[in-house]
Amino acid sequence: MSVLTRYLSVQDLVDLVRRKGLSACLAGVAARIEAEFLRWEQFEKSARLAFHSADGVVELMPIADDRTFTFKYVNGHPKNTAAGLPTVMAFGLLADVATGTPRLLSELTITTAIRTAAMSALAAKKLARPDSRIMALIGNGAQSEFQALAFRDLVGIDTLHLFDVDPRATAKLIANLAGSGLQLRVFSSTAEAVKGVDIITTVTADKALATIITPEMVEPGMHINGVGGDCPGKTELHRGVLEGAKVFVEFEPQSRVEGDIQQMPADFAVTEFWRVLGGQAEGRSSAAQVTVFDSVGFALEDFAALSFLHEVATELNLGSLLDLVPQNDDPKNLFGVLGGHSGGLRRAA
Amino acid sequence: MSVLTRYLSVQDLVDLVRRKGLSACLAGVAARIEAEFLRWEQFEKSARLAFHSADGVVELMPIADDRTFTFKYVNGHPKNTAAGLPTVMAFGLLADVATGTPRLLSELTITTAIRTAAMSALAAKKLARPDSRIMALIGNGAQSEFQALAFRDLVGIDTLHLFDVDPRATAKLIANLAGSGLQLRVFSSTAEAVKGVDIITTVTADKALATIITPEMVEPGMHINGVGGDCPGKTELHRGVLEGAKVFVEFEPQSRVEGDIQQMPADFAVTEFWRVLGGQAEGRSSAAQVTVFDSVGFALEDFAALSFLHEVATELNLGSLLDLVPQNDDPKNLFGVLGGHSGGLRRAA
Repeated sequence: MSVLTRYLSVQDLVDLVRRKGLSACLAGVAARIEAEFLRWEQFEKSARLAFHSADGVVELMPIADDRTFTFKYVNGHPKNTAAGLPTVMAFGLLADVATGTPRLLSELTITTAIRTAAMSALAAKKLARPDSRIMALIGNGAQSEFQALAFRDLVGIDTLHLFDVDPRATAKLIANLAGSGLQLRVFSSTAEAVKGVDIITTVTADKALATIITPEMVEPGMHINGVGGDCPGKTELHRGVLEGAKVFVEFEPQSRVEGDIQQMPADFAVTEFWRVLGGQAEGRSSAAQVTVFDSVGFALEDFAALSFLHEVATELNLGSLLDLVPQNDDPKNLFGVLGGHSGGLRRAA
Repeated sequence: MSVLTRYLSVQDLVDLVRRKGLSACLAGVAARIEAEFLRWEQFEKSARLAFHSADGVVELMPIADDRTFTFKYVNGHPKNTAAGLPTVMAFGLLADVATGTPRLLSELTITTAIRTAAMSALAAKKLARPDSRIMALIGNGAQSEFQALAFRDLVGIDTLHLFDVDPRATAKLIANLAGSGLQLRVFSSTAEAVKGVDIITTVTADKALATIITPEMVEPGMHINGVGGDCPGKTELHRGVLEGAKVFVEFEPQSRVEGDIQQMPADFAVTEFWRVLGGQAEGRSSAAQVTVFDSVGFALEDFAALSFLHEVATELNLGSLLDLVPQNDDPKNLFGVLGGHSGGLRRAA
């Protein structure tokens, strides 16, 4: 049995997306997330392990079913952009539960943007009004184009209302999405951008108890896709927005700590989204109801993304093979891997 | 700033050990463990995250100080050897806390054997009688040669008493250690092998509540280095052995769950080894006292090993560079990494 691990570098992932097309990747990951969420109870779940420091956070997000174990390494450092580094850098692993063999090591920075957008669109498809066509996109940074295209493809959004505190971010988004078929309208404040829209997506990066969306901005029937409030001390929605809405989360124990609902009492009612997908819980109750998907990013979404990548990379034979773990004829002879010339037996000089 | 990650494959690690010499690596990692244990309170520690299944366990072992974050992925699957796979396969990461940038990705299967042996020898150097020369090595599998050489180099052991339920494992060890200068004596049972020795090292791999060492085998003044009892349901020492000894552990909350002391009541007295190193706690009280190092393997040992590897690999310029995370001129333009030909804007067919 081979113990070589397939490796997808950033360039390999770019090649994979070019070969498949980004739309197919967004749709493929969304389908995979839906399938995994429908068998929610088969997974061994835990809140992510987070190491907080002055400038950011480093996290591990593991999950497993009885066949596959995955984890993601991901950081969040808002000040990184000033040093020319990404705010979020991620990679992940997929391994066999039966033997522990690492099967796929992959970049997950670009992939995280894809899976987050796929998750957001999947939630909106079930929670937003079916006639939703206009979306406000508040925060036009690294994740914004992925959100835009996922909502175009999976939800039927045809018009975006754009706002970012950094006008260059908006200009970049407009340049990137020229030719996407999306109508792009730029606004000079969040309040103006959200007026009259069907869906509000917030993807801001400040590590702060921010109040991007306040109650007076919210109109009946809106769906709010809150993506950027995703760690302790980092929120985007005023608590009044949450009080006036039906709130859906991924994995409740994690969202209570990391989501916008960290502002709310422990008994504030939320619904885990997998229940809506599976028909165990109701989604939106009426066309006038305000729904909030308080997304923080859950390990099962990375499990789905890594499974998708593993399947596609194997099919297209993309990436390279790493000797991350030793393979020798006699596994009990690990010492033998060092070879006869290792100097293993000599004492240090 | 570069975001390339140095990668040490199995072959790179073998090259590193050949260049430095195994003795120098064992001594270097032991020195690094000692230095890190002496600043124990500067680390953010947690028990490892373990995912148990029918045939084994998959674990993540993270730790951080204010500058460096590391984690290890490691499995434990005793039946793997039957399929030609190692029982333990591991790799790990070292990243900057300030930015989250991954700096070193390395194989840790061979390295884990080195750091475990270095840890064992460091503990024995402080806890065993200083005149210890004879060690019983119960379990002659993948880790045994590393234990033997670390105890030769760091503790002064000159004679090994060998026993394994699999005589081929013992034959392999003897072949590997020919020329090491160690006197090797083979016995046909644990009881015979441990008679009259100064130190007993148990490195067995069965996932079972085994009783490798029973009270009648233990003689006054012995030091027991219990390595193989390292996860829930996997022990090597009879509880009577623990009751009759002064017991030292790495990180108490983890050892209560995973160590041989999992058999004991929650108030069974143990001493964290870092306290002995730092002089805050007494080690061995008398030449006749029996001491036990109930080792389970703690994340700080991997932190030390990864730091050592990072330093040596940088110095010798070993390994290769991976593009694990994207680097682009405008970090907010993650979408731009996909390039103009990504098909990003086209809808799926």
